[in-house]
Amino acid sequence: MTKAVLLLECPDRKGLVAAIMNFLVAEYDANILHAGQHQDAELGRFFMRVEFECSEDLLHERVFRERFTRIADEYQMRWKLAESGVPLRVCLFVSQHLHCLADLLQRFKAGELHCEIPLIISNHPDGEGLSSFYGIPFHYLPTSGGDKAAIETEQMQLLCDHGVDLVVLARYMQILSAGFVEQWKTRIINVHHSFLPAFVGSRPYHAAFRRGVKLIGATSHYVTADLDEGPIIEQDVLRVTQGDTISDLIRKGRDLERIVLSRAVRWHLEHRILHYENKTVIFD
Amino acid sequence: MTKAVLLLECPDRKGLVAAIMNFLVAEYDANILHAGQHQDAELGRFFMRVEFECSEDLLHERVFRERFTRIADEYQMRWKLAESGVPLRVCLFVSQHLHCLADLLQRFKAGELHCEIPLIISNHPDGEGLSSFYGIPFHYLPTSGGDKAAIETEQMQLLCDHGVDLVVLARYMQILSAGFVEQWKTRIINVHHSFLPAFVGSRPYHAAFRRGVKLIGATSHYVTADLDEGPIIEQDVLRVTQGDTISDLIRKGRDLERIVLSRAVRWHLEHRILHYENKTVIFD
Amino acid sequence: MTKAVLLLECPDRKGLVAAIMNFLVAEYDANILHAGQHQDAELGRFFMRVEFECSEDLLHERVFRERFTRIADEYQMRWKLAESGVPLRVCLFVSQHLHCLADLLQRFKAGELHCEIPLIISNHPDGEGLSSFYGIPFHYLPTSGGDKAAIETEQMQLLCDHGVDLVVLARYMQILSAGFVEQWKTRIINVHHSFLPAFVGSRPYHAAFRRGVKLIGATSHYVTADLDEGPIIEQDVLRVTQGDTISDLIRKGRDLERIVLSRAVRWHLEHRILHYENKTVIFD
Amino acid sequence: MTKAVLLLECPDRKGLVAAIMNFLVAEYDANILHAGQHQDAELGRFFMRVEFECSEDLLHERVFRERFTRIADEYQMRWKLAESGVPLRVCLFVSQHLHCLADLLQRFKAGELHCEIPLIISNHPDGEGLSSFYGIPFHYLPTSGGDKAAIETEQMQLLCDHGVDLVVLARYMQILSAGFVEQWKTRIINVHHSFLPAFVGSRPYHAAFRRGVKLIGATSHYVTADLDEGPIIEQDVLRVTQGDTISDLIRKGRDLERIVLSRAVRWHLEHRILHYENKTVIFD
Repeated sequence: MTKAVLLLECPDRKGLVAAIMNFLVAEYDANILHAGQHQDAELGRFFMRVEFECSEDLLHERVFRERFTRIADEYQMRWKLAESGVPLRVCLFVSQHLHCLADLLQRFKAGELHCEIPLIISNHPDGEGLSSFYGIPFHYLPTSGGDKAAIETEQMQLLCDHGVDLVVLARYMQILSAGFVEQWKTRIINVHHSFLPAFVGSRPYHAAFRRGVKLIGATSHYVTADLDEGPIIEQDVLRVTQGDTISDLIRKGRDLERIVLSRAVRWHLEHRILHYENKTVIFD
Repeated sequence: MTKAVLLLECPDRKGLVAAIMNFLVAEYDANILHAGQHQDAELGRFFMRVEFECSEDLLHERVFRERFTRIADEYQMRWKLAESGVPLRVCLFVSQHLHCLADLLQRFKAGELHCEIPLIISNHPDGEGLSSFYGIPFHYLPTSGGDKAAIETEQMQLLCDHGVDLVVLARYMQILSAGFVEQWKTRIINVHHSFLPAFVGSRPYHAAFRRGVKLIGATSHYVTADLDEGPIIEQDVLRVTQGDTISDLIRKGRDLERIVLSRAVRWHLEHRILHYENKTVIFD
Repeated sequence: MTKAVLLLECPDRKGLVAAIMNFLVAEYDANILHAGQHQDAELGRFFMRVEFECSEDLLHERVFRERFTRIADEYQMRWKLAESGVPLRVCLFVSQHLHCLADLLQRFKAGELHCEIPLIISNHPDGEGLSSFYGIPFHYLPTSGGDKAAIETEQMQLLCDHGVDLVVLARYMQILSAGFVEQWKTRIINVHHSFLPAFVGSRPYHAAFRRGVKLIGATSHYVTADLDEGPIIEQDVLRVTQGDTISDLIRKGRDLERIVLSRAVRWHLEHRILHYENKTVIFD
Repeated sequence: MTKAVLLLECPDRKGLVAAIMNFLVAEYDANILHAGQHQDAELGRFFMRVEFECSEDLLHERVFRERFTRIADEYQMRWKLAESGVPLRVCLFVSQHLHCLADLLQRFKAGELHCEIPLIISNHPDGEGLSSFYGIPFHYLPTSGGDKAAIETEQMQLLCDHGVDLVVLARYMQILSAGFVEQWKTRIINVHHSFLPAFVGSRPYHAAFRRGVKLIGATSHYVTADLDEGPIIEQDVLRVTQGDTISDLIRKGRDLERIVLSRAVRWHLEHRILHYENKTVIFD
């Protein structure tokens, strides 16, 4: 037996759920483990995630793409199938702040994140010890003073060489070029240290301090060409008071960053996220 | 067109979802608005809520019970159908603390709670003005010194006379008899002013203060014969500090009570709650 | 015995706390009930709130202003003394959404808000019933189509006639003129239905929905001439999901609005707020 | 210049704050950086934390204990002075769950925790790699099958040898003897994986799952001879749904455990905690 996740989006129509369920049972004798759906009434769109169990032989023998195409075409679906036995391959990008890196690696080691991490890329050498402790190759590609385009080419080559599926910017303090982002569309997750859309851009804790907010936040999101404007995946906040200095905000914020980034990564790895219209649908 | 909600529970089996969806579309030409499901893998049980839209004539002509019985029997379902056009009838019980009553009535008036409130029952006269302001008959049935059994008989007669579907204990400070509770099983919602199972019984804020907790909570739950032991519907908490006196805890707690009780009532009215094994399943 | 609150702000200096405490004990034989302080290290400023108890006769006989002036001048203080026996007089402004009004009035009646409410002003007739139920005169001053300047003059005359200390905009959907705001500086509290500074301006829930945020918020703040830019008093947030429509956001948001507005009003009435540099200091 | 924290508790009396402040300024020419106080009106007790800056020479020359004794005796104070330049020495106890250990060590390395960690003690070998990565000696003292009393003697000897001030049970799954606890009273911090007083004892997530709670929690507290009954330092909660299995609860709970334990440790290290009557006072 193996497990798989079917994620799909299409115009909302009658008979859709039954058609999908019938297909999975008839073709693969599937046992449905979880099914979640979402309708956007305004846009008339339908979103679904089905986690099912079936015979591994059957799944591989009866090529899913070939068989599902009939339904997918009929209902004009955008869809993908992910086998749970095939973990995604993740590359972490990091700079000199290591709290998100340390957190993700500890979760990875503890089995919270179902993935492979073939490499870590950094523009600072600081993360090398931690990467090495967790047995993951560390690529130091300094950006300051360098030819940014050349470095990006090298980064993309590394991603390609290692068969990477997902890039996680774990407090990587460089802006990726539009070309890079376009090529890795909805496959780059970033954490921004504010509750977006408040305080876009740099030094958001300083801006939050000056504005005198009573809550600080952090946001994980897919990266798009518009800085800090991509589809939001997760947000959380913590209370602050007048007694909190900017340093306190930064410290408290690190707890938020760890939480919202690790949730986003886990959800992506478990194929729980659909994105549309600059928004995300998160399936429990 | 009319809207309806089908809530059901049964042993988990293959083909279940497709069978239900097929039925709704084939028999009622239904448009599925929302569908939520939950599997309890350990117990092998399946829970579902389907909100659908169909022709009112069709729904009334083709008697649902008759047609659905075949499927319900085949899959051993416990189920119910609720038409959205038929609001539940609610009776509020209250004592002298009026914050939950005022909150529920304001929400009712604002259209947040899709129900009818034919009467309010109280063992104190304090709520009369508020009830009258919102145009709802108020029945003052004092309990102190009275014959409790006789009063309960009178209360149950009133519920019966007014065709009540749901009893909401909006800070009603009397314990209902086992007989009353049994007859109104899973149709009585109470709010307890602690995060259950901590601080069962009376004066929970005092107990929380003595224990020195850093969070206080409130819990809404269905009432069972075991005091404060019924299925939990909703809980929430607020932070407290050493600066908070017992009076502060009581005041802060009122905000929690309003929130968790009103959510529970709304979810019940929208047929979002299934209960099993002293737990609840809440459908978004 | 009577209670009083001393609120002050001044440049930070050695000996400040001892000087204040010595003064209160020496001059008024005061019993200190609570004392809170805050230092802004960057600006070198000191903020303090002292709640004390002393003989009422003594407090009135030995005129505080006269005696405290020596210390206040020496330390260049901005300060005020409020006697707890003299509740502030509050005017509520409301439009057609009544949830904040109903909430504040219920809290007022329950004794949570230590104030007098001599009048309610509205540009819609909807709140009249509620005001009358709580026994508070309701002034209906429609704004649509009217001469805004004339209406503001009338409003300010009413505030003056009734000796109002604080104006609370309980979802009052009109923008006050710069002149009004200037005259009532830091004496007008508004609730904005977003976590400022995100989503300033109108229809913030619609904007939040479009942006796909995972948390919605509400903010209470003092009104300044710059719309939604005044010193923030309190903020809170609630989680939303893709399942929430704009109507759901509006409904959930009402709970936030009630909470953050009522806290701000209570803190102001208890003299717990100091404002400086477009920020607030809140004393527990 | 050096910084120091004075923590004290005594019966509430007039003139107390002025006396303390006058003393610090007169004797040490101190600059008060923060001062927090708390009164327990019911018990008539006063609690204070003063963080001040003064000349290091002066502080060492004019022995604090000798000079402060006069005031301390007069007001019957229980007090202590901590110099910020003298970090506490912490020993972490851990078993095979390493998430709290990894979290505390990363915070330590990032400078969040102002302390020294001369050793880690564990009854499982699992934490050795992590300890060694962070350069901290790891003592493996297996408990299973061993002579518990002898092992405790060895543990206490190690604490003594390394001049340890604080023991942190970072998911140490052994119960310390009453003798150990008594000797290290209010110097042992534990994290319990429930919102105490709910779900004391073992396997609290399983108990929470069975009870069907809608929030799970974690609690950090000082260890006393009564298991899970010591003074609570910090608590936090996370929402759970019917979709969460026991494994999900355990995973979500780890985030809570990290947060509440690390806050408690930081507050202890910064001398922000006073305990009395099985409660704690936390100074911001």
